[in-house]
Amino acid sequence: MVESWSFLDTVESNFRPLVVIELAKGTKEETIEWFTKRIVDKKANGGAQLLIKPLVTENGVENIYLVGASHLRLLLGAETVGLVKECNDNSMRTFTYSSRKTFKHFADDNHNFLTMAECQYIIKHELENLRAKNEKMIPGYPQAKLYPGKSIVRRLLTSGILVQIFPLHDREELKKLSHSWYGRVKVGYQPLDDIRCYFGETIALYFGFLEYFTFALIPMAVIGIPYYVFAWEDYDKYVMFATFNLLWSTVILEVWKRMCAILTYRWGTLLMKRQFEEPRPGFHGVLGVNPVTGREEPVYSSIKRQLRIYLVSLPFVCLCLYFSLYVMMIYFDLEQWALDYHKENESNLSSLMLYVPSIIYAVVIEIMNRIYRYAAEFLTSWENHRLESSYQNHLVLKVLVFNFLNCFASLFYIAFVLFDMKLLRQSLATLLITSQILNQFAESLLPYWLQKRYNRRMKKRMCSKKTDMDLSLAEQINMEKEMGTYLGTFDDYLELFLQFGYVSLFSCVYPLAAVFAVLNNITEIYSDALKMCRVYKRPFAEPTANIGVWQLAFETMSVISVVTNCILIGMSPEVDALFPDSKMDLVLTVALVEHLLLAIKFIMAFVIPDKPRDIQMKLAKLEFESLEALKQQVRAFQMQL
Amino acid sequence: MVESWSFLDTVESNFRPLVVIELAKGTKEETIEWFTKRIVDKKANGGAQLLIKPLVTENGVENIYLVGASHLRLLLGAETVGLVKECNDNSMRTFTYSSRKTFKHFADDNHNFLTMAECQYIIKHELENLRAKNEKMIPGYPQAKLYPGKSIVRRLLTSGILVQIFPLHDREELKKLSHSWYGRVKVGYQPLDDIRCYFGETIALYFGFLEYFTFALIPMAVIGIPYYVFAWEDYDKYVMFATFNLLWSTVILEVWKRMCAILTYRWGTLLMKRQFEEPRPGFHGVLGVNPVTGREEPVYSSIKRQLRIYLVSLPFVCLCLYFSLYVMMIYFDLEQWALDYHKENESNLSSLMLYVPSIIYAVVIEIMNRIYRYAAEFLTSWENHRLESSYQNHLVLKVLVFNFLNCFASLFYIAFVLFDMKLLRQSLATLLITSQILNQFAESLLPYWLQKRYNRRMKKRMCSKKTDMDLSLAEQINMEKEMGTYLGTFDDYLELFLQFGYVSLFSCVYPLAAVFAVLNNITEIYSDALKMCRVYKRPFAEPTANIGVWQLAFETMSVISVVTNCILIGMSPEVDALFPDSKMDLVLTVALVEHLLLAIKFIMAFVIPDKPRDIQMKLAKLEFESLEALKQQVRAFQMQL
Repeated sequence: MVESWSFLDTVESNFRPLVVIELAKGTKEETIEWFTKRIVDKKANGGAQLLIKPLVTENGVENIYLVGASHLRLLLGAETVGLVKECNDNSMRTFTYSSRKTFKHFADDNHNFLTMAECQYIIKHELENLRAKNEKMIPGYPQAKLYPGKSIVRRLLTSGILVQIFPLHDREELKKLSHSWYGRVKVGYQPLDDIRCYFGETIALYFGFLEYFTFALIPMAVIGIPYYVFAWEDYDKYVMFATFNLLWSTVILEVWKRMCAILTYRWGTLLMKRQFEEPRPGFHGVLGVNPVTGREEPVYSSIKRQLRIYLVSLPFVCLCLYFSLYVMMIYFDLEQWALDYHKENESNLSSLMLYVPSIIYAVVIEIMNRIYRYAAEFLTSWENHRLESSYQNHLVLKVLVFNFLNCFASLFYIAFVLFDMKLLRQSLATLLITSQILNQFAESLLPYWLQKRYNRRMKKRMCSKKTDMDLSLAEQINMEKEMGTYLGTFDDYLELFLQFGYVSLFSCVYPLAAVFAVLNNITEIYSDALKMCRVYKRPFAEPTANIGVWQLAFETMSVISVVTNCILIGMSPEVDALFPDSKMDLVLTVALVEHLLLAIKFIMAFVIPDKPRDIQMKLAKLEFESLEALKQQVRAFQMQL
Repeated sequence: MVESWSFLDTVESNFRPLVVIELAKGTKEETIEWFTKRIVDKKANGGAQLLIKPLVTENGVENIYLVGASHLRLLLGAETVGLVKECNDNSMRTFTYSSRKTFKHFADDNHNFLTMAECQYIIKHELENLRAKNEKMIPGYPQAKLYPGKSIVRRLLTSGILVQIFPLHDREELKKLSHSWYGRVKVGYQPLDDIRCYFGETIALYFGFLEYFTFALIPMAVIGIPYYVFAWEDYDKYVMFATFNLLWSTVILEVWKRMCAILTYRWGTLLMKRQFEEPRPGFHGVLGVNPVTGREEPVYSSIKRQLRIYLVSLPFVCLCLYFSLYVMMIYFDLEQWALDYHKENESNLSSLMLYVPSIIYAVVIEIMNRIYRYAAEFLTSWENHRLESSYQNHLVLKVLVFNFLNCFASLFYIAFVLFDMKLLRQSLATLLITSQILNQFAESLLPYWLQKRYNRRMKKRMCSKKTDMDLSLAEQINMEKEMGTYLGTFDDYLELFLQFGYVSLFSCVYPLAAVFAVLNNITEIYSDALKMCRVYKRPFAEPTANIGVWQLAFETMSVISVVTNCILIGMSPEVDALFPDSKMDLVLTVALVEHLLLAIKFIMAFVIPDKPRDIQMKLAKLEFESLEALKQQVRAFQMQL
C-alpha cells in the first residue's frame, strides 16, 4: 500500500478548503494552538487527522481557519459515517475502504468520487466527534469545562469561542446548479440529483416534495377551475369534487412515500444505518453516568423535564391558543363593522373595505405565528431535551397545534358556528392569498434584497469591480460568513402544511384554492431556490431517508379534512333539499358517508405498499446477501474447528 | 481446542434423541441410505452433521429414525439460528460460540444451557436447511425432482416419502410442567417461562396473551355485575360503562404491547434478527432465477396469482358472505316463528323455545366458520403464495372478514335495523355462551377423550400395565406419532378475537358479556394447557417477538366498537328523552362524542410508548455497543494503514 496513514499529515500541496471555522476575535493563542493541534493530530492520538490552514488576508490573520482533508482521509471518513454509494453492478452498498474498487466511478485519482457536500458532511462529523480525552477544561478558558468524551467543538460553540462552522460554496458548481435550477424559465423537473449533490439529501428531499406536491395539486386545480368559470353551485358537483379531493389526497400522500423511497434509494440514504444520537448541543445537567453508554456525561432528571413540560409549556401553549381565539373574535367584530359600513355607504371603496379586515387578520396571523415560533423554540430548549430528535418532536408538536388553530380557527368558526358560506369563501381566499404573498416576501425576497445591498456595499468598500466569479478565496469567505444561516426545512414544510390545510379542509366550498396553491408553489420553487443559492450560507448536508414527522402531519390533516368536508356538504342547502321530511336522515347519511370515506382512506393507506416493488426486491436482495455473508462467516469458523 | 469437528461423528455414547423422523412404509433402501448420509455428513460436504439412529422395536426396524446432535454441534447451531441468551451481566446478547464463556449458566459440561425446545428448533432448522447439491432427483424416486439449493426435507415431505418430523416429549419435564400449569387448582399466574422453555415462544406468548386478556377483562366484568344484579337501566350508567369500556380496551391493547416487549426481551426473541424467508413448502412453479437470491428455484408469475385472488378468491368470499347473510335471514324467520308459538301457547316450554333458534343459529355459525376455514385454506394455498408470511396474511384476512360477518351480522341487524334491544341482549347472550361451550368441547375435551380411548386400546394391545412414566422410548414414540398435530395458534387467537367482539361491540347493551368471557377464559387456560400437554404432538418451538397481525385485528375491533357503542347509546330511549325537541341535536351530539372518543383513542395509542422505558434503554445500549464495536473495527483497520 503506497499511502500510509502518517503520510497524510504532510500532503498539503493539494489542499482544498472545504469547511470554514470562525473563532471569536481575541481568542487566546494557547486555545487556538491546542484546538488546531487536536484537529490535525492522528486518529490514534484522539485527533481528527484533518488538514487546517489559517486564512491570511490583507489585514493579516483574522481568526478564520480553513479545514480540508486528504483524499484517503475522506474515503476512510466515508466509511465511518456509513455512506452508501452505487456499485459497479448498479446496486447500492455501504462504502468500505477495503471494497472501494467495486464502487462505480471509483479510481484512486478520481477526487470527485465523493461529492463536495459529502466531503463537508464527513469533515463536520469528524470535527463534532473530536472528543476531550483527559482535559478538564478548554485551555485558556477555565469556565469552559470538559469531561472525557465531551465533544470539543460543541463546548467551543456553547462557550462562544467558536463563532461558527460552515461549509464553503463552490462558486463554479453553484453557478451551474443555479442556471439549471432557476436560471431560465422552463417547463420541467428540478435537477434534484444535482441539488442533492450540492446541498445534501434533506434539502433535495424538500424540493422533491415541493415539486411532487405541486404536480399532485394540478388535477385538483384543473377540476377546480370550471367551478369558478361556470359558477357551478350544484351540490352534486361539489360532492364529486370533495370526494375526488379526499381520495386524491390519500393517494398522493401514499404515492409520495413510494417516490421518496425511490429518491432516497438512489441517493443511498434509504439504506444508511442510523447513527447513534449524541446529546444535543444545548443540553445541560449535572455530571452523571449515562445508563446507555456507560460514559460520564451530563444527565438531567426526566421528572424535572416532565414538570417543565406539563406545568409551564402546556399552560403557556393553552394561553397562546386562548389569545389566538381572542384575536379571532376581534377580527369578527371588525368584519361586522366593515359590513355595516358597506351597507351604509355603498360604493366601490366600501366594497373593497370588506376585504380589509381579512387582510389585516391574515397579517396578524402571520405575525403571531412568527412570534409564537420564537417562544416555542425558547420553551422547548428550556425543557432541556437530551436528544435533538426529542427536541424537534416537541417543537413541531407545539408549533403545529398553534399554527393549525391560529390559521383555521376563524374558518371553522365561520363554517360551523356562523354557517356563512359566502364569508367562508371570502375569508379563505383572503387568508390563503395574503399569507402566500407575505411568506414569499418575508422568506426570500426581503433577505435577498438585504443581502444584495450588503454585497454592493461590501464590494464598494473593497474598491473592486470584480464579478462574483473572480473573487479571491478571502473575499468569498468574508462575504459568505456574513450571510444568514439557513435554519432547516421546518418553516418551508410548515408553509406547505398550512397550504394543504387551506386546499383540503374546505375544498368543497372554494375549489379555486388548489389553483392558487399551484401558482404559489411554482414561484415558491424559484424563490426557495434563490434563497438557498444566493441568500443563505451553504448549509451542511444532512442524510435523511424520508420527510419524517411531516408525513404524519399531512396524513392527519387529510383525515380532518374528510370530517370537515362531509359536514360542509351536509350543510349545503341543495343537500338539505334532498331530505325535505327528515333532517335526521340527512345527518345519518352524512355520518355514514363520512365513516365510509374514512374506512376507504385507511384501507387504501394499508393496501398501497410504502415502497415500490423493485425497491423492495433490491432491499430484500441486500438483506439476503448480508445474511448469506453472516452464514459464510459462521461456516468458515465452524470449518476451522 | 479439544473438540474437533470430525470428532463429532463418532460420539454416539451420549446420544440423546430429540427429533423423530417417520418415513413412509416401504421407502427404498437407497433413499434411506442417501438421506441418512446427508444428515450425518460434515458441514463442509454440505451435510447437517447431526446424529441419527434407527428406532428398533420388537417388530424390527420400522422406518422411524431418531435425530440428535452433539453438544458442540448444538452450540454452533444456536449461533447459526441467531439465538439470543442472557449474559453474565444480565444483558441479552446474540449467542456466538467464541463468546460462549460470557453467557450466564454456560459451562462446557452444562448440557442444559440450551433448553430442549431450543435444541429441537436448531435441529429442525438444520434439517430444513439441508439442501440439494447437484442431485437432479431424490435417489430412487425420479419423479421427486431436486435442483441445487432445494431443501431436501421439504421435497421429501411434498413427495410423501417423509411422513412427519416431530420433536419428542420429555415425559419428566412435561409432568413437572403440567403439574405447575394446570395440575392443581390455584390462584396465580401461569408458569410462562417454563411453558416457553418447553413449547417455545409462540405458544408461551399465546398463553401470556390469554392470561393478560383475562386479567384485563376483570375490571369490565366487575363493573358489569351490578348492572345485572340491580337491573340498572339508566342511560347515564350505560354511558359510563361504555365510555370506560372503550378507553379501557384501548389502554389494555397498548399496555399489552409493553408486556409483550418485556416478555420477549426476557426470552431473547425481541432482539433476534429475522431470518431470510424461504419459499413455503407448498409453493410450486416453473424453474427460473429468483431475482433476490440469484438462485435457480421455482418462480410463479405475480399476475397469475393476482388473477386467482381477484377472479376466484374474492368472488368466492363474497358468495360465502352472501350465504352467511342468507342463513341469518332464515334465523330471523325461525325467531319470528318461535315468538308466534310462544304467544299462542304460553307455557314454560314455549318460553324456553324462545332460546332454541338462537342456539341452533349459534351452532350453525360455528359449523359454517369451520367449513369456511377449510375452504379458505384450500383457496389460499391454491393462490400459490411464495412466502409463508404472505400466505398467512391472506388466510387471516379471508377468515377474519367472514368470521366477523358470520358472528356479528345478526347482532348488527337486530341492533340497527330491528332496533330491538331486548332481542339483541338475548341473542348476544345465547351466541356468546353457546359458541364458548362448543369451542371448549370441540377444541380440547373431544380430542382429549378420543386420545385417551386410543391410548387405552394401545396399552391393552401391548398387554402391559405400565404407567406413562415407565414407557420405553419405542412405546413413547409409537404413542406420540399417532397424536394429532397442533396447527398453530390461529384458531385460539381467532376465538379470543370473536370473544373480544362480543364483549366490546355491544358492551353497553349487555355488560354481563365480560363476566362470561372471564369465566370462559379461566377454563380456556386449563383446557388449552391440557390440549398442549396431553392431546397433541409436541410442536416445534417458533421464536416470535409479538402476536403479529392479531394486534392489528384487536385494535380494529376496538375502533369499530367505538362506533357501535355510540350509536347504541344514541338510540336508547333515555338519551332520546334528553333531546325532546330536536332529534338533530341528538344525532349531532352522538357524532361529536364518537369523533372525540376516536380522537382520544388515537392520541392515547400514539402517546403510550410501545416499549417500557427500561427495555428501550437496554435496546439503546445494545445498539450503542454494536455501533461502538463497528467504529472500533474501522479504527483498527485505519490504524493498520
